[in-house]
Amino acid sequence: MAALPERARELIDARNFATVATIQPDGGPQTSVVWVKRDGDDILFSTIKSRRKYANLVADPRISVLVTEAGDAYRYAEIRGHAVMTDDPRADLIDELAHKYTGAAFDLPPGQQRVVVRVIPAHVVVYEE
Amino acid sequence: MAALPERARELIDARNFATVATIQPDGGPQTSVVWVKRDGDDILFSTIKSRRKYANLVADPRISVLVTEAGDAYRYAEIRGHAVMTDDPRADLIDELAHKYTGAAFDLPPGQQRVVVRVIPAHVVVYEE
Repeated sequence: MAALPERARELIDARNFATVATIQPDGGPQTSVVWVKRDGDDILFSTIKSRRKYANLVADPRISVLVTEAGDAYRYAEIRGHAVMTDDPRADLIDELAHKYTGAAFDLPPGQQRVVVRVIPAHVVVYEE
Repeated sequence: MAALPERARELIDARNFATVATIQPDGGPQTSVVWVKRDGDDILFSTIKSRRKYANLVADPRISVLVTEAGDAYRYAEIRGHAVMTDDPRADLIDELAHKYTGAAFDLPPGQQRVVVRVIPAHVVVYEE
């Protein structure tokens, strides 16, 4: 497990989007965009069980999270690690993230099975052009 | 090979950054940020031979390219495919990309072995919140 450098903490704590990469069944990469928050040295995001990345992470928990600075995407941190997932039946995390990113509650569609994805860092790269 | 939908073309042709995911030697994902341009249905970016992603793509050409809209990262396209790499001894591509993204020539550090990475799409996902 790796500690997050101060610069990575700043990027995650601000209202910056993250791109997450997971491994497809055929071993190739898959990417998508998520909202993130930090819990100590871990990164949290929310997904739903019908998403490709959920199935990928069930099969292989390895993940890379790249957080870019809004307005200057060449300033970023890449956090590689593994994901631990837990059910979020009340959808608390996505609501918390919606408040962080939009300032409002999340308009939850019915029937979604929300999941908390906790990324435990193993290796961190901070990149500043 | 997949054709790029119009929306993916728009995202690539504009001055949007891309996150690329490659496969590490251990099979896990690695991500980084690049400038991109389009050549027909292919996506081009520049890298150097000392970079992690270059070594990864030599060993496994599978790649995912995610292009987000500046200012609204929840509007994006993911292009999965494979990379074909060719040497770029005159560094033409990075110079062309620098003009696209910064309006100026690229200040090329000495000794870099520049490479053109051509991504040939196999599968495209367009996501708009």
